[in-house]
Amino acid sequence: MKIEVIPTAQQVDTNAVKGKTVVVIDVLRATSVMITALNNGAKGVVPVLSPEDAFDIKEKSHDEVILGGERHAEPIAGFDYGNSPFSYSSSVIKGKVLVMTTTNGTLAIKNAMSASELLVASFINDEAVANMLANKDEVVLVCSGNNGLYTLEDALCAGRIMHLLEQRSSVELSDFALAAKALYQAHQHNVSDIASKGFHYGVLLQKGYQADLEYCFTQNVSNTVPYWDGKWLVSK
Amino acid sequence: MKIEVIPTAQQVDTNAVKGKTVVVIDVLRATSVMITALNNGAKGVVPVLSPEDAFDIKEKSHDEVILGGERHAEPIAGFDYGNSPFSYSSSVIKGKVLVMTTTNGTLAIKNAMSASELLVASFINDEAVANMLANKDEVVLVCSGNNGLYTLEDALCAGRIMHLLEQRSSVELSDFALAAKALYQAHQHNVSDIASKGFHYGVLLQKGYQADLEYCFTQNVSNTVPYWDGKWLVSK
Repeated sequence: MKIEVIPTAQQVDTNAVKGKTVVVIDVLRATSVMITALNNGAKGVVPVLSPEDAFDIKEKSHDEVILGGERHAEPIAGFDYGNSPFSYSSSVIKGKVLVMTTTNGTLAIKNAMSASELLVASFINDEAVANMLANKDEVVLVCSGNNGLYTLEDALCAGRIMHLLEQRSSVELSDFALAAKALYQAHQHNVSDIASKGFHYGVLLQKGYQADLEYCFTQNVSNTVPYWDGKWLVSK
Repeated sequence: MKIEVIPTAQQVDTNAVKGKTVVVIDVLRATSVMITALNNGAKGVVPVLSPEDAFDIKEKSHDEVILGGERHAEPIAGFDYGNSPFSYSSSVIKGKVLVMTTTNGTLAIKNAMSASELLVASFINDEAVANMLANKDEVVLVCSGNNGLYTLEDALCAGRIMHLLEQRSSVELSDFALAAKALYQAHQHNVSDIASKGFHYGVLLQKGYQADLEYCFTQNVSNTVPYWDGKWLVSK
């Protein structure tokens, strides 16, 4: 299996993803939220680029829509919830459609739409993602990053997934992929410790999201792998 | 000291380097060659983007000029030497000007010309570079990469320099810089081992440059730090 890792949402282009199995990672917190919402019974998750697009979809939808997401790690005016996975319990989301816009994760997904298969990963569904990827020939792991910059937490999660994949398959890694795997493996017994030195982790900690941070770095919480079915992300 | 690391020559722009102390790294092998040539008495090193520019400078120069460099890791037709540091012994280079063009390292230097200070580093002058940087406020380490892609060896060298700097100064690192430092520190007792998994290392090994590889990963061989003086790189 050939594995490439892309460091930021902004660096995802058609050439890099067309016809490939692409996995989008935004540990803090967009993909952790999407997995949680589908795990808790959401009918679908629709990533959009702007709050205006989200309001527009809600107005036209025949489904019951929940609006979620963030700008600058804060909830968006007029939205139902922010970007904390704890907001998307079964009682809130079951049977409903989550329309989401975030700074990095939803952009990464939109930029990766020409993939042959588009999946969503985080630490919380790491094992399920690795099981689903085990027989692929070519995989692209997209780290969403933060405003165009590399983030430790997404690289560590890509490293975790490659660590699991090399137990299941023969892998061939680019230099950047090798670095992410080596970084994860050097810190696998305390991933949060190195991740906590990262910029975005520090921002969320300062804003009081300690519980989100603990949850988002917990491995194998869910068997749900969000999958783009042409209309929205569904649970595979 | 704030430290940023840029992953490839192509990502160096004026915004990122203007007014800052910039250190260009191309372990395999451009910056290792430049350090070696100046260490062995070269009068100056002139990085240029094309063989044509190199021939032009040689024709017009009042100094004795040696042409060196590579394309696809091979010597260039009409040039005196290739990109092996062993070609630039004192008997060849002393008192002469080395005009060089390589795929990645010379491009990184040209793209970083708006720096307030422009230095050149590799493993072979790591300690001297760290000593020179110890009192700076803001440093940008430029990994040259390989044809626009991240390379393990340059990231490891950036990590090595940061490892030395944090022993000399209080450092503040971006996520990407933290990752490079952590990668180096996890493998500091056998850097060549992880570097040898990289693409470019493999290419050079296959072409028979085993001795170059060993030399380029040897630490603290030289106290020479190439420095751009407005005309060419000289020894500082």
